Amino acid sequence: MAEQTEVIEQIDPRDIGTPDNWIPRHPELIRLTGKHPFNCEAPLPLLLKQGFITPTSLHYVRNHGPVPKLSWDTHKVVIDGDVSNPLTLSMDDIAKLPYIEFPLTFCCAGNRRKEQNMVKKTIGFNWGAAAVSTAIWKGVPLRYILQLAGVKNDDNYEKTRYVCFGGTDKLPNGYYGTSITLKWAMDEEKDVMLAYEINGKRLTPDHGYPIRMIIPGIIGGRMVKWLDKITVSNKESDSWYHFHDNRVLPPNVDAERANKENWWYIPNYIIYDINVNSAIAAPAHDEIIPFSSFSSDSEYTLRGYAYSGGGRKITRVEVTLDDGKTWLLSDLFDLEERNGRTWCWTFWSLKIPTHSFVSSSEIRVRAWDSSQNTQPENITWNVMGMMNNCHYRVKIHVITYGKDVVLRFEHPTQAGNNPGGWMVRQHEQEQKQSAPANTPANASKSESSSKDPKYTMEQVKQHNNEKDCWIIIDKKVYDCTKFIPIHPGGTTAILINAGTDCSEEFNAIHSDKAKKKLTTFYIGDLDDSKRPKL
Amino acid sequence: MAEQTEVIEQIDPRDIGTPDNWIPRHPELIRLTGKHPFNCEAPLPLLLKQGFITPTSLHYVRNHGPVPKLSWDTHKVVIDGDVSNPLTLSMDDIAKLPYIEFPLTFCCAGNRRKEQNMVKKTIGFNWGAAAVSTAIWKGVPLRYILQLAGVKNDDNYEKTRYVCFGGTDKLPNGYYGTSITLKWAMDEEKDVMLAYEINGKRLTPDHGYPIRMIIPGIIGGRMVKWLDKITVSNKESDSWYHFHDNRVLPPNVDAERANKENWWYIPNYIIYDINVNSAIAAPAHDEIIPFSSFSSDSEYTLRGYAYSGGGRKITRVEVTLDDGKTWLLSDLFDLEERNGRTWCWTFWSLKIPTHSFVSSSEIRVRAWDSSQNTQPENITWNVMGMMNNCHYRVKIHVITYGKDVVLRFEHPTQAGNNPGGWMVRQHEQEQKQSAPANTPANASKSESSSKDPKYTMEQVKQHNNEKDCWIIIDKKVYDCTKFIPIHPGGTTAILINAGTDCSEEFNAIHSDKAKKKLTTFYIGDLDDSKRPKL
Repeated sequence: MAEQTEVIEQIDPRDIGTPDNWIPRHPELIRLTGKHPFNCEAPLPLLLKQGFITPTSLHYVRNHGPVPKLSWDTHKVVIDGDVSNPLTLSMDDIAKLPYIEFPLTFCCAGNRRKEQNMVKKTIGFNWGAAAVSTAIWKGVPLRYILQLAGVKNDDNYEKTRYVCFGGTDKLPNGYYGTSITLKWAMDEEKDVMLAYEINGKRLTPDHGYPIRMIIPGIIGGRMVKWLDKITVSNKESDSWYHFHDNRVLPPNVDAERANKENWWYIPNYIIYDINVNSAIAAPAHDEIIPFSSFSSDSEYTLRGYAYSGGGRKITRVEVTLDDGKTWLLSDLFDLEERNGRTWCWTFWSLKIPTHSFVSSSEIRVRAWDSSQNTQPENITWNVMGMMNNCHYRVKIHVITYGKDVVLRFEHPTQAGNNPGGWMVRQHEQEQKQSAPANTPANASKSESSSKDPKYTMEQVKQHNNEKDCWIIIDKKVYDCTKFIPIHPGGTTAILINAGTDCSEEFNAIHSDKAKKKLTTFYIGDLDDSKRPKL
Repeated sequence: MAEQTEVIEQIDPRDIGTPDNWIPRHPELIRLTGKHPFNCEAPLPLLLKQGFITPTSLHYVRNHGPVPKLSWDTHKVVIDGDVSNPLTLSMDDIAKLPYIEFPLTFCCAGNRRKEQNMVKKTIGFNWGAAAVSTAIWKGVPLRYILQLAGVKNDDNYEKTRYVCFGGTDKLPNGYYGTSITLKWAMDEEKDVMLAYEINGKRLTPDHGYPIRMIIPGIIGGRMVKWLDKITVSNKESDSWYHFHDNRVLPPNVDAERANKENWWYIPNYIIYDINVNSAIAAPAHDEIIPFSSFSSDSEYTLRGYAYSGGGRKITRVEVTLDDGKTWLLSDLFDLEERNGRTWCWTFWSLKIPTHSFVSSSEIRVRAWDSSQNTQPENITWNVMGMMNNCHYRVKIHVITYGKDVVLRFEHPTQAGNNPGGWMVRQHEQEQKQSAPANTPANASKSESSSKDPKYTMEQVKQHNNEKDCWIIIDKKVYDCTKFIPIHPGGTTAILINAGTDCSEEFNAIHSDKAKKKLTTFYIGDLDDSKRPKL
């Protein structure tokens, strides 16, 4: 449990030169969208090793832009709209109110998205299976604040009344915000709160310092950080992100169709509740068990997590080693319950004879929750790559390793740009197989590019400002100066990469359409002949 | 809508000689456990044809024993236990209280069980896909009654406090009962009520006349009929059926293990919420479309139902004709909502070119609900055969039919003993394939039985009372006289079948263990040489 009190003080070299260059971050977090904005998860085995409560420094983070630099002493939360007594509260005002404190599992709607991206690229970046973490949150119930603002506990809330939340972050499409119904907000059982502490300390900047929303049982994307505005309204949130983020559209709707036909505004497709999900953490990806290390009575303990939403409890976790013919019942660790609701993940474990792996090619896990729902066997792609909860599958290989014969385990993917994973291999093979069909186009393109100008890294580095901005993506050089003012992702997002190789940042979050648009700004190739080979 | 007011007055010939010989029943209902007790569902196409509201006469029925013969004028409901003001209310008392009235979908936990029975026999009988119906229910909120008994609205209900319900029916294992938490009972949003009207009229005997529980969003099995007892307690219901019915045990737990190791008492395996489910009603089983009847612009409208539990809304229903490679989004009929919760099914439809069927071998449907859960692709067997919600699959065959070439559709099963269905065919083939291994045993058995005494139907009919009770099952004659007092299903259940062929009744509800026990009472074979062949 030592990690729980670990305080990170160092600025990570990757944050230097970004607007977040003042925020200490754990060096072991896997960065999913390059250096900025900050989106990260812990390596899965490291996450599970922490136990039930994730240390704040290893809790996954989802930031849409630069972290607002706020102060406890000056920050205010405004409560207005359709209330009889609009309020403005300081942090000290809020911290004096009665509080609640309990453990809560956060889960990003994009958890396990990289698996979807291996089927077909979604518009989202490569979350692995660790976009989920559990911390102890402390704060004021939202209903107390609303009561102070004049909302009565016995109001007969019409279902059309909403509570809208807004954060101070300034993003390309305005503020980040969302809403829930007033009925939900006022329901004591739902435990909705304005949180100002995580794991016994004030929030860290990445987790919404000084204050954020906590709405148990639903996806992290609605728990607005850096909260400064609560509005009671007859309309749901007007934030762009309330409609264009955190939705599951049907699988045959791609980005172009979604925009053209306004699929973002269809109420059925909004995500609130977390769905039932589980993953395997042990054996880890690339874990190896030499045949020489085990005998007929050796045992191995499989481990992982499982969770569900809406306060529903995980009631069973089962593992199959024979493609679903038989399912082995795993042990569940005691679940935290609160008023008969479960806001937390559970860990599962299953002891099996080690030699059971030898005759199997895949370990698969599935969970069931108290509403009798379970995970689907196979992936269903959706344009945002969200809510992926198909069976988690780890492949088992018997290979030679030096003089040993060993069992090697392979997870479907590894978070971010990290290599490895059987879905990644499959995806690469598919791409290779489809490549020959494109040969003529590719060939002519690479031929012509060989005649294009070549620029060294040193040359590119000179073009590093708003008036002269070059970037390198996948060894090609682009002059983006004219594009800066009209970049849909905002000017900062380009400028912090001016004069650098930002392949990782670009590829993580851009659509095929954006990639096509980029070609307009192509001016030549990177001359990396003088760079040492890795 | 004519059917909704249809009043059934005739006694069905199948009910004559049973304790239910006073209850008029719709002749088109499919009987699932022989003539008694009464368990039935409507043919699926007929059910859907009724529209959103199912006429009372076609609503599915699940009875565990004889229907209690109760009277509005004399029936009482006792409210007692941990309350300050125990009450006894007459039906007139109850009908004078403020009421609520709304449509509600009932769903049996065993809906679609026959599919599970085709994988391996469960301990339950063969529900098809029509153990689901929707009616308008009217009654008094349970919380009003509890308030009258002294439960205060602002009580801080401990989670260990329960409300237990009991019915007047006398069953082999005592009264039928179950329980919910007091918090649930007192929650206005949950709409729990004591109902005395269905579709604008007093309840019918099969639906709990004069009064039953209604607990929206959960399985029908907890909505106790012929209600006469409400007890507030620190313990959940002590009814045998609360523990031994309506549970989903893990797939590797069979009946013997469940009993021996007390799996019935593990809290995680109790069923409350309905899970997400859907089925195809059109095309119907054995529906035929001649090639000559359609051209390139002909269209066919697929139809069916979908539902979920816990007030969760169905947000999408999708159909695939290519084994899940692409999913077609169906249209949903407007859902009934009540305080932001959905207590009802929805109907879906999808218009496709008729010729799309020609290149497909299977129509599959899946639904998604507002908690982002969906149905699993494949069946998971469990010993009670409950909560089956795998994708519903209708096979498409191209066959010759006289001079025509036609499309013929085949559902997985047909309810009860009705023949037909691709899962039934598969099951029969598997049995045939495994039969040769058993040949010697079977052969010797059938040989020996040919030397056994033979009795005519007329002879068996004479042994029709408590002191001399023969029955016929699968053409074998058994003398059960000694077994009557110790029959786990009660004496009545045997006696109403005394002197008759009750193969259907017996096979529908008895375990393999019971079937083995039966052999003890074997006395000879049925001589049906004089009976006309069917």
